[in-house]
Amino acid sequence: MSTSFKYNRLSKGDAALLLVDHQVGLFSLVQDFPPSEFKNNVLAVAACGKYFNLPTILTTSFENGPNGPLVPELKEIFPNAPYIARPGNINAWDNEDFVSAVKKTGCKQLIIAGIVTEVCVAFPALSAIEEGYEVFVVTDASGTFNDVTRHTAWLRMQAAGAQLINWFGMACELHRDWRNDIEGLGTLFSNHIPNYRNLMTSYFTLTAQK
Amino acid sequence: MSTSFKYNRLSKGDAALLLVDHQVGLFSLVQDFPPSEFKNNVLAVAACGKYFNLPTILTTSFENGPNGPLVPELKEIFPNAPYIARPGNINAWDNEDFVSAVKKTGCKQLIIAGIVTEVCVAFPALSAIEEGYEVFVVTDASGTFNDVTRHTAWLRMQAAGAQLINWFGMACELHRDWRNDIEGLGTLFSNHIPNYRNLMTSYFTLTAQK
Amino acid sequence: MSTSFKYNRLSKGDAALLLVDHQVGLFSLVQDFPPSEFKNNVLAVAACGKYFNLPTILTTSFENGPNGPLVPELKEIFPNAPYIARPGNINAWDNEDFVSAVKKTGCKQLIIAGIVTEVCVAFPALSAIEEGYEVFVVTDASGTFNDVTRHTAWLRMQAAGAQLINWFGMACELHRDWRNDIEGLGTLFSNHIPNYRNLMTSYFTLTAQK
Amino acid sequence: MSTSFKYNRLSKGDAALLLVDHQVGLFSLVQDFPPSEFKNNVLAVAACGKYFNLPTILTTSFENGPNGPLVPELKEIFPNAPYIARPGNINAWDNEDFVSAVKKTGCKQLIIAGIVTEVCVAFPALSAIEEGYEVFVVTDASGTFNDVTRHTAWLRMQAAGAQLINWFGMACELHRDWRNDIEGLGTLFSNHIPNYRNLMTSYFTLTAQK
Amino acid sequence: MSTSFKYNRLSKGDAALLLVDHQVGLFSLVQDFPPSEFKNNVLAVAACGKYFNLPTILTTSFENGPNGPLVPELKEIFPNAPYIARPGNINAWDNEDFVSAVKKTGCKQLIIAGIVTEVCVAFPALSAIEEGYEVFVVTDASGTFNDVTRHTAWLRMQAAGAQLINWFGMACELHRDWRNDIEGLGTLFSNHIPNYRNLMTSYFTLTAQK
Amino acid sequence: MSTSFKYNRLSKGDAALLLVDHQVGLFSLVQDFPPSEFKNNVLAVAACGKYFNLPTILTTSFENGPNGPLVPELKEIFPNAPYIARPGNINAWDNEDFVSAVKKTGCKQLIIAGIVTEVCVAFPALSAIEEGYEVFVVTDASGTFNDVTRHTAWLRMQAAGAQLINWFGMACELHRDWRNDIEGLGTLFSNHIPNYRNLMTSYFTLTAQK
Amino acid sequence: MSTSFKYNRLSKGDAALLLVDHQVGLFSLVQDFPPSEFKNNVLAVAACGKYFNLPTILTTSFENGPNGPLVPELKEIFPNAPYIARPGNINAWDNEDFVSAVKKTGCKQLIIAGIVTEVCVAFPALSAIEEGYEVFVVTDASGTFNDVTRHTAWLRMQAAGAQLINWFGMACELHRDWRNDIEGLGTLFSNHIPNYRNLMTSYFTLTAQK
Amino acid sequence: MSTSFKYNRLSKGDAALLLVDHQVGLFSLVQDFPPSEFKNNVLAVAACGKYFNLPTILTTSFENGPNGPLVPELKEIFPNAPYIARPGNINAWDNEDFVSAVKKTGCKQLIIAGIVTEVCVAFPALSAIEEGYEVFVVTDASGTFNDVTRHTAWLRMQAAGAQLINWFGMACELHRDWRNDIEGLGTLFSNHIPNYRNLMTSYFTLTAQK
Repeated sequence: MSTSFKYNRLSKGDAALLLVDHQVGLFSLVQDFPPSEFKNNVLAVAACGKYFNLPTILTTSFENGPNGPLVPELKEIFPNAPYIARPGNINAWDNEDFVSAVKKTGCKQLIIAGIVTEVCVAFPALSAIEEGYEVFVVTDASGTFNDVTRHTAWLRMQAAGAQLINWFGMACELHRDWRNDIEGLGTLFSNHIPNYRNLMTSYFTLTAQK
Repeated sequence: MSTSFKYNRLSKGDAALLLVDHQVGLFSLVQDFPPSEFKNNVLAVAACGKYFNLPTILTTSFENGPNGPLVPELKEIFPNAPYIARPGNINAWDNEDFVSAVKKTGCKQLIIAGIVTEVCVAFPALSAIEEGYEVFVVTDASGTFNDVTRHTAWLRMQAAGAQLINWFGMACELHRDWRNDIEGLGTLFSNHIPNYRNLMTSYFTLTAQK
Repeated sequence: MSTSFKYNRLSKGDAALLLVDHQVGLFSLVQDFPPSEFKNNVLAVAACGKYFNLPTILTTSFENGPNGPLVPELKEIFPNAPYIARPGNINAWDNEDFVSAVKKTGCKQLIIAGIVTEVCVAFPALSAIEEGYEVFVVTDASGTFNDVTRHTAWLRMQAAGAQLINWFGMACELHRDWRNDIEGLGTLFSNHIPNYRNLMTSYFTLTAQK
Repeated sequence: MSTSFKYNRLSKGDAALLLVDHQVGLFSLVQDFPPSEFKNNVLAVAACGKYFNLPTILTTSFENGPNGPLVPELKEIFPNAPYIARPGNINAWDNEDFVSAVKKTGCKQLIIAGIVTEVCVAFPALSAIEEGYEVFVVTDASGTFNDVTRHTAWLRMQAAGAQLINWFGMACELHRDWRNDIEGLGTLFSNHIPNYRNLMTSYFTLTAQK
Repeated sequence: MSTSFKYNRLSKGDAALLLVDHQVGLFSLVQDFPPSEFKNNVLAVAACGKYFNLPTILTTSFENGPNGPLVPELKEIFPNAPYIARPGNINAWDNEDFVSAVKKTGCKQLIIAGIVTEVCVAFPALSAIEEGYEVFVVTDASGTFNDVTRHTAWLRMQAAGAQLINWFGMACELHRDWRNDIEGLGTLFSNHIPNYRNLMTSYFTLTAQK
Repeated sequence: MSTSFKYNRLSKGDAALLLVDHQVGLFSLVQDFPPSEFKNNVLAVAACGKYFNLPTILTTSFENGPNGPLVPELKEIFPNAPYIARPGNINAWDNEDFVSAVKKTGCKQLIIAGIVTEVCVAFPALSAIEEGYEVFVVTDASGTFNDVTRHTAWLRMQAAGAQLINWFGMACELHRDWRNDIEGLGTLFSNHIPNYRNLMTSYFTLTAQK
Repeated sequence: MSTSFKYNRLSKGDAALLLVDHQVGLFSLVQDFPPSEFKNNVLAVAACGKYFNLPTILTTSFENGPNGPLVPELKEIFPNAPYIARPGNINAWDNEDFVSAVKKTGCKQLIIAGIVTEVCVAFPALSAIEEGYEVFVVTDASGTFNDVTRHTAWLRMQAAGAQLINWFGMACELHRDWRNDIEGLGTLFSNHIPNYRNLMTSYFTLTAQK
Repeated sequence: MSTSFKYNRLSKGDAALLLVDHQVGLFSLVQDFPPSEFKNNVLAVAACGKYFNLPTILTTSFENGPNGPLVPELKEIFPNAPYIARPGNINAWDNEDFVSAVKKTGCKQLIIAGIVTEVCVAFPALSAIEEGYEVFVVTDASGTFNDVTRHTAWLRMQAAGAQLINWFGMACELHRDWRNDIEGLGTLFSNHIPNYRNLMTSYFTLTAQK
């Protein structure tokens, strides 16, 4: 049993966010989440990227064809992020501009989410692991055709050393301590976790009555 | 087989919207939908109410206790709607102010959504049917503990003559014809159906390129 | 569509509770609920019976054989209730003592729960409907082999005019108004709905701090 | 609500069993049950037919083609039952020999199970209802492609007045009283309900030790 | 219980097929079936329409907008069918050309399938029932957002008197007797039911060896 | 294949129990278990801690805010346990008081359960593994948003060397031999496994009759 | 990627079968399989043991208490197998008689199935791996409370080096080549795989007609 | 965490495709996919093999018995592929002709799909890994009895070093760059991913209008 395990946790100074192929056409292939839940997860990861000031890279695959443009919300959240519209490489890591944008971040932890999980996420994840990066896959902001393709992708990436994480885990691991910014983290959660928002409404209603 | 069936379809001049007990505490009881999907559905019904200018009535049950306040979004969407904070009646129809607000709408079609389905929705639905109203239950904006309690409530209401409908069906039945307002209906769908929004983005991207 | 629907709601003075064959052996046949959830539902129905002072009748089928004795908790909650250990009748309504106990309650509304749904619940439900009783079946306190047998039984009973209800709906329909006894109903919910208990703990913690 | 409901329960003297198209080829189309569970259900219905001495009719559709022969177990259980190998009629009720065999039973209650539910079961069920028979469909001994086709068939038949029942409910409704034959019914259950067999083993082990 | 039930079964001379809004954009909203299964079902219904020579009507909603064109396969199968591109009516029955095309068929049985179930199928279904048609809804060739919206639509239509059917049931009810055309029906099944095709391959392989 | 595997089984002298953030607000985020089942599991783990006299540490996160207080039952079961109300650290292991309480137990096996699985459980689990502890995660007493976040957390922890276990496995591994205390273990199971309680009732009823 | 993997496949001369605690009481705890499917799997494993002449060991836990006796079918299949009724050890490997019976087989491959998976199977599996045995866990003949406890147990055992296998895989890996005994293997499959039996019936029916 | 991971991605020059036992009889055993979805996946893998010109090997097990012949579509797609009808070896790797055909391809990457997953896929997969091949298992073109047997097989193969992949991932990993052949890859996807075909129809419809 891994006595030599090292817990390299996500660290604000050291983590970059890669959003891969969240394009309007490709969204219509995703069937392993209800669409409103999946959209919320994708926007939540983006909100984390912005909130934690993570170097963020946007990329698309063949966006002038049927895959379609990036969902506009992501462009709006990251207007200045490097944006690599790959002309044809399926694995983003095969694109020099993309890799060079990644390297320029200077981060050794890469957080990846995208569509579809087994290709647009798994391929650059495996490539990055091979080059020595610590790779974190945001499972709930990565969509695919169905549960079979999802689990297939997860197991392949787990075996290669990728760490599976969800956006909430990612946010908490980056934030470390509520006291770093209670209101900011609270707002992030309130915007993307309805039940957490309700807890907050309840709390502030009752404490305001005092 | 019903040779005498009459299709009284939802009609803008004749339909009122009753939002029953969408309170922050009660939301935490809902487990038959993923929370982000359920919240989206509730807001979509409210958006329909506003878009179609339906007379709308808000009501809560015992809101100063653990059930908590109405979710603030609904108050914001309907700032001038009759708001009946029932001091104790579980069935909203047992509250005179509520029934009188319903009657004042002059509508004979009632669209009901609420938490929890088998109580806050089913009770006033059954009472209203008894009094001769045509009742439409918005199934996907009404939440409850689990699938068993959901289907139990649906079958009881179906047997009593309530019509089960979802928010999208409600919107389409009220709108009748896209030409009545293409942009308005499109915006409504775009805001609450991620895949429809993607279709629109795709469409406008490609047609704009011409 | 039912213009002639009459909403005969559950009424404290007029409703009796029939708990049919909740025997230790028969529990092991129930697979349409996780056991701890099912047990909670059964005890919740019993708690409603006691709280609302409903005339309650206990009955078992062939309890000296493999079906085994009634679960002891029910005996403890209703020590003085009529207890009919049927020697062989599968349909409780075929047992004269049972029917006579039902008649002695003077109630015309019968709330039935039991194991298994399609037999021990459905048979007396259909018999009682035939004799003019209003029958309410507590779906979540009635267990059976699997989802197929459950829905089979529900549809048969719905077609015969039984009203499907869950224990929470039953409690709310009987109570009518929180103000009849806030603490009592709150305690009932707190004991059998973990998330409601949490709402109450939250509420009382925050209001106590004032 | 059905004040005029009449509970025509299954009655040994008045009920015939129709086993329709349980053919080896058609079994491979059934995917709404795990195969070993479905086979057990089919054999259990057959065992009921034999145990209760129900007039039983076997029929197959085009058995020399890909649909294949009847599963041999059914032939063995009912060696002397009327056996109608329909040359082409899909609805068994379109076959004169079949209808005449049904009429010869003199029964007015027909219990039907078969493959596939929406055709081989539903068609004769609807035909028989039209001719005034009381029809009972054994849901768990009738198989089809998937849940969608299953529920489609159930709702169509329910609307037409068929009563949905499972094999265990059928057995219990026919038997009426354990005392009519404790050992026989116990054996039937022991052979087809593993958990009931375990109850019996437990019971007899402990009582034998006295 | 329905002593007066009349089984008006689907009849080749009397049934028309209405394919409503199977448009490429709307397909991306469908999540209650795996896409390849749903596509197969839609093509199977179309194949039935062609094979049984049913008068068939194609219609689309706002096809120059995001909903997109009809899937090309349907146009190819029915090159000469009336094709009503509705400029805006959501309920196809609100479109005079559509209704007049329906009337021109002279059929009193209407088979409807479409996207989405609760709107494009349910609305014309309810309208047609009101006008006295016998309506058959092909549940497995009608898609929608999820299981909640599906069952909502089914129960509303069932209550109105629509008959729920799947494409296989529709084919069998129309064909009546294998002998009317063994090869034709076999080919239809072979093309759209993989397990049936396997049965046939097996059968013909073995019989060819004789 | 692991020829060098060492089975360090849970051992009463060497195992401490860490209950992390079972707070009333956070419970409302848990949707991967029915609430009554989850509550039962949490109380069962606590009952194990008490029964086996495990050094137990309670901790909460930001309990004066929306997360709310610890569920009172846990405080009652462990009135004297170290109780660390973390003012802000999300990972309990980042809190010196917590780590020092852990170290003071002298145990090298840590059993962890909490809400939510991927944060409150996974973070201290990974930290503890890194420091050389043997970590056991009680999967069924740890709750989270849904199945995706649950499996994500499980695979991340499994890859790091955590052992996944459920409360029943934990109890059995600690107890080793029924003869160490038949009545005590039996009571523990009877209180938290309804079907086991039924077995015991059955057994004692029959043996008492001798 | 594991270039050093060695495929130690199950081998008739080297594999023993351990059936652990398939007792009538414990069966009632199993809810992760439909009972008739689970029973079939257990009997299939036993049939494999007999057919392949595997040294087989039966063991029970506290069988005079509520856990109850071994299911009689297993005793009948293996009348002469070592039978260790453990007086109290929960982990069978803690029982000297059991371990000594295992050692006496001289096998280094152990195939284990039992109830419940995470205890009666996992504990001896982990112990045996530690002692250098190659352990194969028959997942579909091992039952437990629910899917959470099942997957928890699987992942713990997988991490320790146990090989997960189902009974069909076990049979095929032991048999190696159909030609070793076509009829024997065919009979085994025919008895426990209904769809395989149907294939055989179909095949022999058609080939017999030649 | 695996710093030494090497991402040996599928490579057109180096990968062979092994299609194992996709026989008509064995298809009827597959229940972990809807049949039309599974068939589509199998044909998609085959289409990939042809499109990428992968050396492909077909093999069957005992095809003159109940397992039946290979599905004819595969023979048609690969008329000249080595075809090994194994007379009895269950593990294809035990057949010299098969292994020699594999060796003759000169590839060191083997892509395997078949029926059933835990036998016909897993056995040669494990054998090939042992001999140093890189093995890729196409999970969605490999079918088995149910989810339990599927996951059992996946975990066993994952532990041995097999890489799990789905057919879409396989296609993308082989293609590398859309620019290598946009039309070819688009056609492949259009033929086997209905939603992708819809995207393409939409795209070409709108761009053609320019």
